Amino acid sequence: MYSPEVESLLKSKKIKVGDRVRIEKKGMVYEGILMPRIELGDSSSLVVKLDNGYNIGVRIERDVKIKKIGRGKAIKFKASGVRIERDAAKPTVSVLGCGGTIASRVEYTTGAVFPAFSPGDLLLSFPELKEVANINGRKLFDLLSEDITPSHWQIIAKEVAKEIRGSDGIVLMHGTDTLHYTSAALSFMLQNLPVPVVLVGSQRSSDRGSSDNAMNLLSSVLTAAKSDIAEVTVCMHGSSSDDFCFVHQGTKVRKLHTSRRDAFQSVNALPFAKVWYKEGKIEYLRNDFNKRDKKVFRLDDKINPNVGLVYVHPGIKPEFISSLSEFYEGIVLVVTGMGNVPANPSNDKFAKSIVPSIKNLIASGIPVAVAPQTLYGRINMNIYSAGRMLNETGVIGQYCDWLPETAFVKLMWVLGHTKNMDKIKEMMLKNYAGEISERSEVE
Amino acid sequence: MYSPEVESLLKSKKIKVGDRVRIEKKGMVYEGILMPRIELGDSSSLVVKLDNGYNIGVRIERDVKIKKIGRGKAIKFKASGVRIERDAAKPTVSVLGCGGTIASRVEYTTGAVFPAFSPGDLLLSFPELKEVANINGRKLFDLLSEDITPSHWQIIAKEVAKEIRGSDGIVLMHGTDTLHYTSAALSFMLQNLPVPVVLVGSQRSSDRGSSDNAMNLLSSVLTAAKSDIAEVTVCMHGSSSDDFCFVHQGTKVRKLHTSRRDAFQSVNALPFAKVWYKEGKIEYLRNDFNKRDKKVFRLDDKINPNVGLVYVHPGIKPEFISSLSEFYEGIVLVVTGMGNVPANPSNDKFAKSIVPSIKNLIASGIPVAVAPQTLYGRINMNIYSAGRMLNETGVIGQYCDWLPETAFVKLMWVLGHTKNMDKIKEMMLKNYAGEISERSEVE
Repeated sequence: MYSPEVESLLKSKKIKVGDRVRIEKKGMVYEGILMPRIELGDSSSLVVKLDNGYNIGVRIERDVKIKKIGRGKAIKFKASGVRIERDAAKPTVSVLGCGGTIASRVEYTTGAVFPAFSPGDLLLSFPELKEVANINGRKLFDLLSEDITPSHWQIIAKEVAKEIRGSDGIVLMHGTDTLHYTSAALSFMLQNLPVPVVLVGSQRSSDRGSSDNAMNLLSSVLTAAKSDIAEVTVCMHGSSSDDFCFVHQGTKVRKLHTSRRDAFQSVNALPFAKVWYKEGKIEYLRNDFNKRDKKVFRLDDKINPNVGLVYVHPGIKPEFISSLSEFYEGIVLVVTGMGNVPANPSNDKFAKSIVPSIKNLIASGIPVAVAPQTLYGRINMNIYSAGRMLNETGVIGQYCDWLPETAFVKLMWVLGHTKNMDKIKEMMLKNYAGEISERSEVE
Repeated sequence: MYSPEVESLLKSKKIKVGDRVRIEKKGMVYEGILMPRIELGDSSSLVVKLDNGYNIGVRIERDVKIKKIGRGKAIKFKASGVRIERDAAKPTVSVLGCGGTIASRVEYTTGAVFPAFSPGDLLLSFPELKEVANINGRKLFDLLSEDITPSHWQIIAKEVAKEIRGSDGIVLMHGTDTLHYTSAALSFMLQNLPVPVVLVGSQRSSDRGSSDNAMNLLSSVLTAAKSDIAEVTVCMHGSSSDDFCFVHQGTKVRKLHTSRRDAFQSVNALPFAKVWYKEGKIEYLRNDFNKRDKKVFRLDDKINPNVGLVYVHPGIKPEFISSLSEFYEGIVLVVTGMGNVPANPSNDKFAKSIVPSIKNLIASGIPVAVAPQTLYGRINMNIYSAGRMLNETGVIGQYCDWLPETAFVKLMWVLGHTKNMDKIKEMMLKNYAGEISERSEVE
């Protein structure tokens, strides 16, 4: 609820959500659509969607002038009444909705948000999909991806497992912020996939001219329906033009820009393929993926979510490292360079070696894995003395080129299977889903 | 010291550091130069430099065979006896050594390490420097960069301040792991610079054919001597070829690969310039830098090192966030997407909103800044509800496109100046050294 002052102001001006308003504050003028108030938000601020597509918050204070300059229009979009004919000649793709920008159709003339999940909704929004495949649509939940947790990864994995029979491929619509954490988790949980499982998101909502939702969704359905990549993948814009999407390996991809449409990039690996959606063509860039066949699919969704992802930095305190045992049963340290931490400081009033604290964590039964802060490249703790000392503590990750986020998700998954330190180390260093690339002579 | 067993083994085989050895273990054969034992290292392992340039550690157990196959050669490199003539027509560049791969000349036939810091050493190693400038060389300390702390940043800043009079430019040789933390710190500490201050490192040691030390050092001296960029910059390989170096803005650069020579990249900004070292040419890519002139240089090295750099991830625990107040007086949260944290979770057994914990940290007087996990792009907490809730806690960073490492160093520096929360916020959001790019319409 708005504050009583704001409520009465809106009432006196006969302004409702969806109306076009003009606000003057401190010499600035804002024009746009009044949006619904967010829960837990500041009760004295109005949210206005500007014509450039962005929302701004304006705190209503004494000097603010507000005027209604247009009425909200009625909702035009109706999902009901779409008749879907199945085409037996076409593959069948299941589209499961987890939330995020792509999973919503926002009617900004009214501010109402439509979760677009039913086959009817999807085909209304994106009629091109019908040309590619028969679509089964279903909503799992509707969350922004920052609120997705390890338990949601389990739900998604179970629902994908249910959906595999009767589908030629599965598309998961998901928010982008933690899309790569989810794709890594599913890569470990869904073993011997017989069909493609493609995660897709959207960086810009459908009300913006530059939205990437249509092209990304169409490309992901193409990948699910037609590609031979029976792996967990992420399908997103490959460039800042609307020409192709990349199909990234689920364990080797990361969001690398807050807002660009080509924010997702493969790290330490080539993407599996490019999808030229206009031509309906899939161009393979690699061939080392699991192909479609009658594999014995296995759902392995055991996970222990008590893992922390911890950044190492100048001035990091040994007692902070030690305190992690109070919160987590496993730690991924994001270390500098090829695998270094403050180890050998000279006589310094500010910082001490964290090597003994790491050693103590491991001695107390908490596995510690390491991954590179640089994101790109491979851990090698043999080159420098700090790395050697770190390696000798028993940290896990020597010669690994895994992403910090992937190592983190993997440690959760491994700790769902065993508490035995040797077994943990063995499982962590085993390559389950391409998360550790083979070392090559070229490096 | 090695363990008594290893000592007596080496003695019985008459093997000394620098000798060429052949070790057989579990069917594997290793040949290379026996390196000096690292302090605090495993006393039962030998370190051998293989012919490919990498060191490996071999633990000496019962099944290990070791043989001496060549004697260490005498040291050939002598730094003494170099006569340096000053050329009054050439600029003068001060080269200060902080350690790292570039600052050492390793004589691998003996395993001895020469800190190459005196003008004589430098000119012996890199005679091309003499063509560019008169070189003053001096060693500040000799640390791998993972052991550099905020107090070293202060030492470096003070020494640069001393060196400015009488120099046309200053080069700092520094390890690469935390080079970008140091460059950010110096960017805040050294205000109104009258001459270039160029940090330079090396990704590969001088004993490897692919070493980048000569080209990087020469390019940095060229930049210090001849460029008009009176800023703190980082000069490193611009591509994986030996063609040019980039001159990066000190607050906008990050190590993005563990081992590649072009590991350093500008993020959210263009580099200031390219240096074509063969041609001695500086090609400017921007013009918005401070130029050489008679500015009133100011050393402002006050810093509070009690700041933590904390990664946000699925499953992060509110009580972990709360515990940070025990260790740090300021926090930089590395958040997902445009500025989101778990904020609104559904009924979930695994994770809870961390928004109240952040609010409490701030209420208790601990400033919390936010920076993007994506590295590239800009924070905008107005777009999604989680971001809005986060913004309303009073975190600092709305519309900032700073790197997490830069925001972290800046918060240390700001906390060295004030404990007043309003003043902290004001200083954090003020652009001191290009750390926050102007917003553009193109975004």
